[in-house]
Amino acid sequence: MGNFGFTQMTYIERLAALRGELAHENLDGVLIPRGDDHLSEYVPACAERLAWISGFTGSAGMAVVLKDRALIWSDGRYVLQLAEQTDGALWQRLHLTDAPPAKYLAENAPAARIGYDPWLMAQDTVDRFTQDGVTMIAVGENLIDRIWHDRPAAPLDPAMPHGLDFSGETTESKRDRIAAILRADKLDTAIITDPASLAWLLNIRGTDVDCTPFALGFVVLHADGTTDLFMAPEKLPPNTRAWLGNHVAIHDRAALTRVLAQFGGKRVRVDTAGSAAWFSQTLRAAGATIVPGSDPCAEPRARKNTVEQNGARAAHAMDGVALCRFLHWFASNGIGQTEISVGEKLQEFRALNPLCRGDSFPAITGAGEHGAVIHYHATPDSNRDVRANEVFLIDSGGQYFAGTTDVTRTLWTGPNVAPAILQDRFTLVLKGHIAIATLVFPDNCAGVRIDAFARASLWQAGLDYDHGTGHGVGSYLSVHEGPVSISPHLRPAGIRAGMILSNEPGYYLPGAYGIRLENLLLTQPAGITSEKPFLGFEILTLAPFERSLIDVSLLTPAEQAWIDRYHARVLADIGPHLPADEQAWLTTACAPLHHSEQPA
Amino acid sequence: MGNFGFTQMTYIERLAALRGELAHENLDGVLIPRGDDHLSEYVPACAERLAWISGFTGSAGMAVVLKDRALIWSDGRYVLQLAEQTDGALWQRLHLTDAPPAKYLAENAPAARIGYDPWLMAQDTVDRFTQDGVTMIAVGENLIDRIWHDRPAAPLDPAMPHGLDFSGETTESKRDRIAAILRADKLDTAIITDPASLAWLLNIRGTDVDCTPFALGFVVLHADGTTDLFMAPEKLPPNTRAWLGNHVAIHDRAALTRVLAQFGGKRVRVDTAGSAAWFSQTLRAAGATIVPGSDPCAEPRARKNTVEQNGARAAHAMDGVALCRFLHWFASNGIGQTEISVGEKLQEFRALNPLCRGDSFPAITGAGEHGAVIHYHATPDSNRDVRANEVFLIDSGGQYFAGTTDVTRTLWTGPNVAPAILQDRFTLVLKGHIAIATLVFPDNCAGVRIDAFARASLWQAGLDYDHGTGHGVGSYLSVHEGPVSISPHLRPAGIRAGMILSNEPGYYLPGAYGIRLENLLLTQPAGITSEKPFLGFEILTLAPFERSLIDVSLLTPAEQAWIDRYHARVLADIGPHLPADEQAWLTTACAPLHHSEQPA
Repeated sequence: MGNFGFTQMTYIERLAALRGELAHENLDGVLIPRGDDHLSEYVPACAERLAWISGFTGSAGMAVVLKDRALIWSDGRYVLQLAEQTDGALWQRLHLTDAPPAKYLAENAPAARIGYDPWLMAQDTVDRFTQDGVTMIAVGENLIDRIWHDRPAAPLDPAMPHGLDFSGETTESKRDRIAAILRADKLDTAIITDPASLAWLLNIRGTDVDCTPFALGFVVLHADGTTDLFMAPEKLPPNTRAWLGNHVAIHDRAALTRVLAQFGGKRVRVDTAGSAAWFSQTLRAAGATIVPGSDPCAEPRARKNTVEQNGARAAHAMDGVALCRFLHWFASNGIGQTEISVGEKLQEFRALNPLCRGDSFPAITGAGEHGAVIHYHATPDSNRDVRANEVFLIDSGGQYFAGTTDVTRTLWTGPNVAPAILQDRFTLVLKGHIAIATLVFPDNCAGVRIDAFARASLWQAGLDYDHGTGHGVGSYLSVHEGPVSISPHLRPAGIRAGMILSNEPGYYLPGAYGIRLENLLLTQPAGITSEKPFLGFEILTLAPFERSLIDVSLLTPAEQAWIDRYHARVLADIGPHLPADEQAWLTTACAPLHHSEQPA
Repeated sequence: MGNFGFTQMTYIERLAALRGELAHENLDGVLIPRGDDHLSEYVPACAERLAWISGFTGSAGMAVVLKDRALIWSDGRYVLQLAEQTDGALWQRLHLTDAPPAKYLAENAPAARIGYDPWLMAQDTVDRFTQDGVTMIAVGENLIDRIWHDRPAAPLDPAMPHGLDFSGETTESKRDRIAAILRADKLDTAIITDPASLAWLLNIRGTDVDCTPFALGFVVLHADGTTDLFMAPEKLPPNTRAWLGNHVAIHDRAALTRVLAQFGGKRVRVDTAGSAAWFSQTLRAAGATIVPGSDPCAEPRARKNTVEQNGARAAHAMDGVALCRFLHWFASNGIGQTEISVGEKLQEFRALNPLCRGDSFPAITGAGEHGAVIHYHATPDSNRDVRANEVFLIDSGGQYFAGTTDVTRTLWTGPNVAPAILQDRFTLVLKGHIAIATLVFPDNCAGVRIDAFARASLWQAGLDYDHGTGHGVGSYLSVHEGPVSISPHLRPAGIRAGMILSNEPGYYLPGAYGIRLENLLLTQPAGITSEKPFLGFEILTLAPFERSLIDVSLLTPAEQAWIDRYHARVLADIGPHLPADEQAWLTTACAPLHHSEQPA
């Protein structure tokens, strides 16, 4: 259960207070999504309303508090965590896909008036609830905020310039490009609510949330390239104001209502699936024409320019030094450590580089059976020792001004030879990883079209993994970035040159171990003679794979050659930056594979 | 140009007459889609309005006749045909995806009032035009029909029972299953407008259109399993009425308006993307609640039961005999024939079997460069001789009561050895074909997730093909059947056991040759130990691949073994049914591949 201190309200008191507000508003229930005004995965403490009311801290969830019942939903990743963090006497726990909230409400509370905060749900989501038969009532002031008396203040960290040495393109140029898209679609204005798009478009970064260098705010971009930025003025020091230039007008967030009220008659692009419904509702009331469309910055932001590409290479070279030093350390010192201490050690190695700005997400360090929990988080309660002869999974990343990293390695603690079945599973995952890394595919190919190459070897063995194969990664920004993913989801966005994507197939045996092998890939022209443009991947991540878990006999000659080439590159790029003993270790770790290595 | 005879109106006269009707209706233009009241790919002669007004006979197209201009759209397959069949002085030709009709009209005729026939467009399509800014006016009586004085009558061929020996499930059982879906979704009624669903649901077949054994009509299915069938009474002889039973009420089509008018207050499932907008508009006017949803018969119909699966095997065994006899004949007699005579010869071989009910589609017989035209149709004008030392592509299928076939082989006429580059291309296509045939994948996997396995070998060489890899195939029904395809399209429908899908990768070098290798596959449980259900494919089609076009050195040992196993099965299953000389030929055609076969 979450711990909010002794002086605070109990969960029973919180629910009672919330039900008091329901009565006040003549509502039968209220929806509490997990998310902030930006509908972002990365939220500040003041927006952790779902955790405050329920105790559940997972990154995906929704609660509904009715007069007589309280319901909370999450997905397959969080079944255990949901049960552990919430009180079963207060909360009925449900699965987001098995019993979707809208269908549940339509069937079990058919006449109920359900309140929602239009700042915390997308218009498309609200519409889906309505279509399913739920009576949705927008509530002016968030009901939780009224009763959460010690709610943290919104962050007011300064937004700082992100220089051209790292961004590679001026904000004027970026704003001109997006404005041209608006003009081509005969639009007057676009509403941009994703803080990653704000950061990219204006070349600024901040520290409002952990791990992701956002400065929270909203942007209204006009077809002539002029821009309204809605951000607390105290977050914008003089150097940042100078950096933004004359064509970015700065307003406090409170001015949003007034400014949008002037948009009557304008054609405004709104991401009705990814922006707060408040924008659609306010614009409609103002008499604007809403043209639904995805965030126009999403694709340009994902296509890294040459400066960003070089930055990514530099960030990964720095990160590779920390990773290889860590892997060397773990090989001799891992057994007897704890999951938390191992994670801290990797942080230490990253922190040796003064250019590292911290983690890009809280590291996942899963020993043995904990590795099978895909979004495992070692807590003081769950933390356990690293033992001999087990699998250790570590998924982590660093933030550098030059770029963002994300890497997973799956290690064998030894000293015994790993069981053959484990080598088999590891090697099947590795074959999938290589299949993606070596793929050549047409420009603008949707990620869903290539996802299964990472799985085909597992499928032949009747195995699979229940997550996507790859996600976009920002440039000193979000470690999860749209619009492209390599996954079974039917997302239409196509892979383009310059995009950075993760390649992370896995296999998980619940209660036993988890395997995940992740490199970041930079999409590049394939460099072949072809009838139309084809793309391929340049590997960014530099760290050896655990050779003691590879069954070489399962690799084709081409796959074996790929591993040997990759390891040779890791040694060449990282080796010279290591002390002698670590270099010697890396030389062995990166030596060519031999059939003789395989167990009998 | 189309030939409608000397006594008929010229295309100039037709356009003038249509413009007269525009003036009459106070319209600025009219939309003329290609399709009938069922929005079906397979249309009777009376619905060929697009061909009548323009001369264009392709299977995908749309025209807009404005007061001062006439525009006609088709897709990449039909660029040449569109130019040949329509008069450039009368028609401006456009590409459906490059300059979509709705966008074109919104930009080039922004204030125009555009008439459309709600029987010939889906509501979703009408809505998209409206959203794009086109003023759409439903017209009561089709404007073309008013001026097409010698329009053929609607077909009145009898609908005949399709026995349980072939269908394997009574119509009562099928209607109960679909009704249970309606009850689960709290629906009262479903509107079924796809003639293939009508045929499947009621176990009847007809001859209203060429090649596809439809009986055209509409079905309204109620949640209690009772059914209203709307079909001209003269199409239903007494034995068919008896076969349908007491719970199927028969109405003339004219009764649709009256029956639907009684649906006020009911929840009605309508395929707003695939059914005529007339249904949505009539139901809405009656006060019914329209619940958009795909045709509820589509997935059950696609999942063949055991009787249908055995029927498919039997149909393919019969078809394989005709195919192998044809291939033997072509090997000695092909050179000097014409594309049309070769197609007729294959029809003759199929017709030797009295159980063959004709072609499942007009065969594509493409010699040399004609094979590169993906939807090529040999006409007396285009027909050319089959020459020595060229590629010959033949794509055909047969209808049998037991099942529907569809097969493509790509042949080399010889006598010389085929050029190495051609063998290379053929073998890359073959590798893709084998990759699909041998794939193991999770139950309910969307086809888009596996399509690229058919392409990866081509992609590595910078090549691709501009069509899907596979489509569903009916059971003595449509040769193109939904809801599943193996293609780059992001269709959510998943592949399930019992579905029949084509596997037809290709490669086309415009002006030179076309390669396509097509077998039909029956989806089956994979038969492996696995954590969740996995599927694989059983091959239905039985005919050898052209061994002289295979570069064995490009095949992996597993791929070579697959070909040898497949050929051995063809020989074992078909050989005994052939005369001695043909059997000897087949034995050679199906002999194991040897490396020595490859050219130096």
